[in-house]
Amino acid sequence: MVTERGRRACHHLAVSESTEAKTGWLAPEELDQARDRVPMVYVDAVPVRVNSHGEVTHVGLLLRARPDGTISRAVVSGRVLYGERVRDALLRHLERDLGPMAFPRLPPEPSPFTIAEYFPDPTVSGFHDPRQHAVSLAYLVPVDGDGAPSQEALDLAWVTPAEAVSPEVRREMTGGHDRLVRLALAHAGCLP
Amino acid sequence: MVTERGRRACHHLAVSESTEAKTGWLAPEELDQARDRVPMVYVDAVPVRVNSHGEVTHVGLLLRARPDGTISRAVVSGRVLYGERVRDALLRHLERDLGPMAFPRLPPEPSPFTIAEYFPDPTVSGFHDPRQHAVSLAYLVPVDGDGAPSQEALDLAWVTPAEAVSPEVRREMTGGHDRLVRLALAHAGCLP
Amino acid sequence: MVTERGRRACHHLAVSESTEAKTGWLAPEELDQARDRVPMVYVDAVPVRVNSHGEVTHVGLLLRARPDGTISRAVVSGRVLYGERVRDALLRHLERDLGPMAFPRLPPEPSPFTIAEYFPDPTVSGFHDPRQHAVSLAYLVPVDGDGAPSQEALDLAWVTPAEAVSPEVRREMTGGHDRLVRLALAHAGCLP
Amino acid sequence: MVTERGRRACHHLAVSESTEAKTGWLAPEELDQARDRVPMVYVDAVPVRVNSHGEVTHVGLLLRARPDGTISRAVVSGRVLYGERVRDALLRHLERDLGPMAFPRLPPEPSPFTIAEYFPDPTVSGFHDPRQHAVSLAYLVPVDGDGAPSQEALDLAWVTPAEAVSPEVRREMTGGHDRLVRLALAHAGCLP
Repeated sequence: MVTERGRRACHHLAVSESTEAKTGWLAPEELDQARDRVPMVYVDAVPVRVNSHGEVTHVGLLLRARPDGTISRAVVSGRVLYGERVRDALLRHLERDLGPMAFPRLPPEPSPFTIAEYFPDPTVSGFHDPRQHAVSLAYLVPVDGDGAPSQEALDLAWVTPAEAVSPEVRREMTGGHDRLVRLALAHAGCLP
Repeated sequence: MVTERGRRACHHLAVSESTEAKTGWLAPEELDQARDRVPMVYVDAVPVRVNSHGEVTHVGLLLRARPDGTISRAVVSGRVLYGERVRDALLRHLERDLGPMAFPRLPPEPSPFTIAEYFPDPTVSGFHDPRQHAVSLAYLVPVDGDGAPSQEALDLAWVTPAEAVSPEVRREMTGGHDRLVRLALAHAGCLP
Repeated sequence: MVTERGRRACHHLAVSESTEAKTGWLAPEELDQARDRVPMVYVDAVPVRVNSHGEVTHVGLLLRARPDGTISRAVVSGRVLYGERVRDALLRHLERDLGPMAFPRLPPEPSPFTIAEYFPDPTVSGFHDPRQHAVSLAYLVPVDGDGAPSQEALDLAWVTPAEAVSPEVRREMTGGHDRLVRLALAHAGCLP
Repeated sequence: MVTERGRRACHHLAVSESTEAKTGWLAPEELDQARDRVPMVYVDAVPVRVNSHGEVTHVGLLLRARPDGTISRAVVSGRVLYGERVRDALLRHLERDLGPMAFPRLPPEPSPFTIAEYFPDPTVSGFHDPRQHAVSLAYLVPVDGDGAPSQEALDLAWVTPAEAVSPEVRREMTGGHDRLVRLALAHAGCLP
C-alpha cells in the first residue's frame, strides 16, 4: 500500500547538478524566444521574522535595481528552471538574495498563499513585468538568521508589518510587490 | 486610496481575442522548443459535485486517451497560454472537457489547493508527463450542471469519494492523477 | 479499504432535530455561565458575489444593531450550537441573515481562510466582543440569489471590493469586521 | 493609517498570568457543565520534522492513555482556555506533550489546514471524543529539537510519512487521529 513512488514524492530532493548545468547552458536568446511564447514559472518569497508564537514581527525587503533602471524595494523573486523543483528554486533564490546565513524555513505545504500573474501590460492584473508574462507562486518564508544580501541586491531592510504597508514604503515598491506584501501579511492575519 | 489598479486587479477579465489569436499562431515546433527549455504553466481541475452544505458527493473523472496511447481516467488538465489569466485557462479547459453546460464554479481564491510538478522522469515528484516539465496549479471546482464531455474526452463519470480512492479506480489513473484526486479530497476534508 | 466511517464523514448531514431541540432548551443564564468559563465556537461568513470567472465583484454587508446599541455594518456571524456541525451553523446563520433566497455556495474545504479571536478586551487581538471570548472560523461564501435580509438584520448592501475597504465603509464596521473584510478580500487576491 | 490596534493585533502575546490563573480556578464540575452545553474549542497539532527544503521527513506520534483506558497513538491535542489566544494554546500543548526542548515552529498563518469536529457519537463526523463536542483547529507544526515526552505522554515516536499511513500504525490511532494525520500529510503534498 505504501508505494515506492509515494516515498520518493515526499523525500526526494530533485534538482541534480546535471540539470542545473543543462539550464545554465540556456543562451539568453533562447530564453528570450521562450519568453515570447509561453508564460514563465516564477516563485516569489516574502521573507519574514516571526516570534516564538509564529507571529510576524518583521518583513524583509530588498533594495534593488529593477529592469527599468529605477531603484525599488522588492521581495525575493526568480525563475523556476527546466527540471528544477519549485522548492529548490525557492531555496536557491532565497540564498542568492539573502545570503547563505539567512536559514530560510520553507513551509511544509506546497500550495502558495497566492499567485501573482505578471504581465508586460500593467493593466491586466496589477502585477507588472515589462520583460515577460510570468505566473509566480508566492510563499511566506520565515527566516531565522541574519540575512546578508548578496552583491546583486543592494540592501536588505527588516521593517515592521505596519511600516511595510505604510504609504512611504509602498511607494518604493513597483510591479505590484506592495500588494504582494499586503496579501502576505493578510494571510498571516497581520494586516493592520 | 482605492486605486484604479486595484479595481482592475479584481474585476478585469484579461484574455483578449487578439491574445488568443496570437497564441493560436504558435507553431507546434515552436511549442516543442519552449518545452525543452522552460517549465510549462498548467492548471489541473478536479471537478466535484457538492450538496447544499458544500460537502463533496461526487468526483468527475474523464476517460481519455493519454499521450502514450493508453486509455486512462484523468482530471481536467491543460496549458496556460501566453497572455492568458490563470482563471481564464481554468474555465477554458473545464468547458472544453466538460462541455458548455457544466457551469463550473471557480473558487474565489487564486491560490491552488496544491501544485503538481510533472516531469518526464516519473521518479522526480511522482507526477509524470513524458512530453515536458510542467508546474500545474491544482484547483477543486464544484460543477453545477450536467457535464457533457466534448469529442476529445471519451467519457465522463461521476463517482463517489470512496470510489474515487478505491484501488480499482486508482489503477485507471496515470501520471499521478490518482494522488491528485486524493489530495483534493483531503483538502475537502473528505478522505476516507 | 473504503470504510463506512469515511463515507459518513463525507456525506452525513449531522444536526438532527433532536439536537436542535436540545440546544433550543439552553436557558439564557446557562449560556451566560458557559460564556464566562470557556471560549465560544463561532462562524463568520463574508458573503460575496462572484462573476463567471470566480472573481469577487461585490461584498455583502449587513446593517445591524450591535450589542452596545450602536448601528453598524457587519458580516454574517453566529454561534455553533452543541451537537451542530460547523457547515450546518454556517448555512443556518447565512439563511437567517440573508433570507431563504440567497442560495449561499458553501466552500468544499472545511478550513477557514482565517480565524477571528474575539475578546471582551479590544486590545488583545483587534477583534472585539463585549459579551464573550469567541473563536470564530471565517469563510468567504459566494452567494447566488438575491439576499432579502430577515427582520433581525436591518439592511443588506452589496458594495464593490474598493468600496468595502474605503475609509467611509470601514468606519461603519466595529469589532474588527472591517479587518475581517480586508483579510477576506486579500484571500480572494482582491485587495486594492 | 497604521493604527495602534493593527500593531497590537500582530505583535501582542495575549495570555496574561491573571488569565491563566482565572482559568486554573475552573472547577472540574464547572467544566463538565460547559461541556454539556456548548462545543469546546480545541487545537490539534501534527508535529513533523522537515528537511532544509521544507519537505516532511517524519511525523511525531504520541503513545498515550486515552480516556477509555486503551493505549493509542495520537497527535498533540488540547483545549483552548478562556482568555487564551489560539497560538498560546498551541504552544502550551506542544510544550506539554513534546517537552521544553522540542522548539516547535508555529506557522505564521492563523488558518488551520483543516478542522476536526469531535462528537460523542462517532458516526457524526468520523472524529470521536466520548467526553464532549469539540471543534478543533488542526495545524501542521515543524519541530526542530529533540522532543522529550512529558510524564503524561508515555512515548514519542518519529515515523516516516509512509509508516504513518500504514495499516499497522493507523490501527493504533483512535478518535479519527489516523485520518487527521493523512489530511496533514496531504496538505504537505506528501500523501503516498
